[in-house]
Amino acid sequence: MTTTRLCRTFQTAPAGVARDDSAKYLRSGLAAEGWQAPDWLVPDLEDGTAPDRKEEALRNVRDLLPEYAPEFAGEIWPRVEWGYDDEAARERGRDQIATLAESVGEHLDGVVVPKVGRRADVEAAEAAVEAAARETGHDVELAVIVETARARSDLREIARLGTDSRLAALVFGPVDYAAELGGRAVGRRPTWPGLYEAMSNEASANDLLAIGGPFDRLFRERAGVTFYNGDEYAEHVEREARVGLDGSWSLHPNQTEQSNRIHLPTSDELREAVRKIAAFTEAKDDGTGAVSIDGQMVDEATFKGFENTVETVRAVHDARESQTRECYDADLLERALSVG
Amino acid sequence: MTTTRLCRTFQTAPAGVARDDSAKYLRSGLAAEGWQAPDWLVPDLEDGTAPDRKEEALRNVRDLLPEYAPEFAGEIWPRVEWGYDDEAARERGRDQIATLAESVGEHLDGVVVPKVGRRADVEAAEAAVEAAARETGHDVELAVIVETARARSDLREIARLGTDSRLAALVFGPVDYAAELGGRAVGRRPTWPGLYEAMSNEASANDLLAIGGPFDRLFRERAGVTFYNGDEYAEHVEREARVGLDGSWSLHPNQTEQSNRIHLPTSDELREAVRKIAAFTEAKDDGTGAVSIDGQMVDEATFKGFENTVETVRAVHDARESQTRECYDADLLERALSVG
Amino acid sequence: MTTTRLCRTFQTAPAGVARDDSAKYLRSGLAAEGWQAPDWLVPDLEDGTAPDRKEEALRNVRDLLPEYAPEFAGEIWPRVEWGYDDEAARERGRDQIATLAESVGEHLDGVVVPKVGRRADVEAAEAAVEAAARETGHDVELAVIVETARARSDLREIARLGTDSRLAALVFGPVDYAAELGGRAVGRRPTWPGLYEAMSNEASANDLLAIGGPFDRLFRERAGVTFYNGDEYAEHVEREARVGLDGSWSLHPNQTEQSNRIHLPTSDELREAVRKIAAFTEAKDDGTGAVSIDGQMVDEATFKGFENTVETVRAVHDARESQTRECYDADLLERALSVG
Repeated sequence: MTTTRLCRTFQTAPAGVARDDSAKYLRSGLAAEGWQAPDWLVPDLEDGTAPDRKEEALRNVRDLLPEYAPEFAGEIWPRVEWGYDDEAARERGRDQIATLAESVGEHLDGVVVPKVGRRADVEAAEAAVEAAARETGHDVELAVIVETARARSDLREIARLGTDSRLAALVFGPVDYAAELGGRAVGRRPTWPGLYEAMSNEASANDLLAIGGPFDRLFRERAGVTFYNGDEYAEHVEREARVGLDGSWSLHPNQTEQSNRIHLPTSDELREAVRKIAAFTEAKDDGTGAVSIDGQMVDEATFKGFENTVETVRAVHDARESQTRECYDADLLERALSVG
Repeated sequence: MTTTRLCRTFQTAPAGVARDDSAKYLRSGLAAEGWQAPDWLVPDLEDGTAPDRKEEALRNVRDLLPEYAPEFAGEIWPRVEWGYDDEAARERGRDQIATLAESVGEHLDGVVVPKVGRRADVEAAEAAVEAAARETGHDVELAVIVETARARSDLREIARLGTDSRLAALVFGPVDYAAELGGRAVGRRPTWPGLYEAMSNEASANDLLAIGGPFDRLFRERAGVTFYNGDEYAEHVEREARVGLDGSWSLHPNQTEQSNRIHLPTSDELREAVRKIAAFTEAKDDGTGAVSIDGQMVDEATFKGFENTVETVRAVHDARESQTRECYDADLLERALSVG
Repeated sequence: MTTTRLCRTFQTAPAGVARDDSAKYLRSGLAAEGWQAPDWLVPDLEDGTAPDRKEEALRNVRDLLPEYAPEFAGEIWPRVEWGYDDEAARERGRDQIATLAESVGEHLDGVVVPKVGRRADVEAAEAAVEAAARETGHDVELAVIVETARARSDLREIARLGTDSRLAALVFGPVDYAAELGGRAVGRRPTWPGLYEAMSNEASANDLLAIGGPFDRLFRERAGVTFYNGDEYAEHVEREARVGLDGSWSLHPNQTEQSNRIHLPTSDELREAVRKIAAFTEAKDDGTGAVSIDGQMVDEATFKGFENTVETVRAVHDARESQTRECYDADLLERALSVG
């Protein structure tokens, strides 16, 4: 973790759906409270919105953001259309970026561009965002979805755009990705551990956020009863947290709650971090470089991991104090805010 | 899967063996029928043939192809000698490529070149194939075996030859590869998941086929009885199919049958694909971009995966109608051929 | 395995600690005998030594090496300070390298440089070693610890320095690495299989050694009793051996013993290798290129793996004859020394 910018949750909301209120999902995402409020809300103008509803969806975003965005504590990142192999989609994407920046640019943190290809294609997307930002004076950033074989092939080169461009985040898109490669759910689905490692690494090497892919088996059925698939989603998010991703994709308020919680250190993790930071600091003051605490060697390197834990808690505390107050007892939280 | 060119099975057959009929394995591979007929037959002039039988093996290929190839429904790809660190082997390989193209070029689809090194070495192999093809007028292609640390290191650059060269396929060679890296079967063998992911990705990014490595524990023994090791091979092939490889290597007619079957979608997979394509198409007609079917979110991205399933079935149906007729009931097959 | 240079164990010893004898760990590493003697001893001037003890630690190395190094059968590689993002640390590292080469250069095999960044930073470390070697006339080499996102990103380019530079080994540093990426022990720790594969591959492609990362849970507690965590460390080392690493990091004499033993082929492995080399050699003499032995196809490729096994045993036999005499019965060892 090379930044404390929060994106524990990247929640997409179809921006125009076939309902009485076509902005139903967008509205509920923007109005979500407590643990169900995502760190990033992503109004979806791409695959989640039918072709003949794109205009209505864009209108919904323009209509609702002025009303809801000022009260929304997280960031807002619409997903536009794009496609490395589809010039018409890129043209629509450029139009959507320009329109969004012009009409609701002050409420946007960035735009999410899907189905990018090799580095040159990402540069084209970045140029569209840069042009819209320059024209409107709004500081809009770029997140790209890594979901094509070409983007994975160029991942290292794409990420290196990070240090001096509007690129701020890499997001994984496993469904398109599996379809491009021909991956099949034989027994179980492919899990792409190599891609996850590379995405986490390249994001860290270039000060980008790294965000996981959606988990679409929202519900399970057993013995006639259908219920929210909370175990499998939690395992999915835990796997992403383990490898160092900053956050996970959510398709549902329940997923948002689980991802917000899992990407926050547990009480035990925080307690261990605080205790070992204190013990190691004391040992260092005594002239000891490495010390064995509860059977684990702690040195400068181990120490950094414990510092990360504390820094994440502090960032969440700044943004959503009610969450840290609920998760940690007052004494532990106090020590986390003051240690080191 | 970016192509519907079939290579569910890549069966090597030693082309000259110490038997009364030194072409025994080559002949049985060319004459195989039904599920035991490989999509690609690879007459082996390299490691499967002893040094003092190379000439006899080449003669066998030249003798048998005119007789068997016209009836053989799959492709024919002899494996020649090569070695990035062995100029004598490369010289023999160039001679074998030239001789094969000249004598039986009309029966060949390509040649398989093993033990390639960095990209420059693959370019040398490609130049040999290009020269032979130009000289004889036969459209011979190239498959390389990725089985050295240098080839793995340059995999991305090697694959990029794909779009404008005779390179058509990447094949994995785990035995040489493990020996180069010093990998050991401690408890179990190394499985190289990172290499598998990279090979599948780079093949898809450059319109190449990706083919798995051989599984050499053909037989197991238990309580005195030796029998075909069908479970372990099936698991090996399933792992390769999961990550998006187009086909698997076979060393035996039983392996060919299993690999042909596993790289064909199951009846349940096809049924789900057909049903969800129909439901999603209907939802799209109603103006819905994403729809939840049996608890799974289906959108344009998910849709592509289902299309892949149907396209593979159609390709096999074109090449081996008896296999699709056996695997799917008539109604399902009919819908697969007409849906979407 | 592209070299028979031994580094089954890379044991770090803090060079200056808060004890009556501040060289306690350094001394015991240099004086270790039998299975507890590491192939490489790494006197640690970096994270294992507190800031205000660095000078004392350096003095300990200068004092003890002339006394112990002549009798030490392995190699000696001090770890100096460095940091791709810390110019002061690099300055200290350059001084430490120069001082070590000048004062005890005849006892050193190389220096270990931690926290390197992209290739340019490794080139800077290599220039410091090259300058010290040139100035003193001692043939000092370089090992770098891969423990930052930048070094992992540039791993292929860094390793390519190997063929014409002083770079001799790549070592993994999982603790700093996990902290950089933000990896968390959610349920279990991240294991970075993709990095392991890449490190083994790039080392083999460039004639470098590849050495695993430390395992810091030295002790476990159960029902009130604390004991050496021998099972988990053994599994850690087995995983590293499986993927082709030449050796593992040790923090304790017990770890050194386990790693020395695991990176030596088992008696069964050696017996199989010797038997199959003999059977395959015989088959080749009979004009057979591939032969099925106990249900496994053996050809030139398989053969190489068996040769590796025998060569490792021979290298250990040369360096530590008591270890091979203990592990293999006399007849098997004799055959291993003479076969092939």
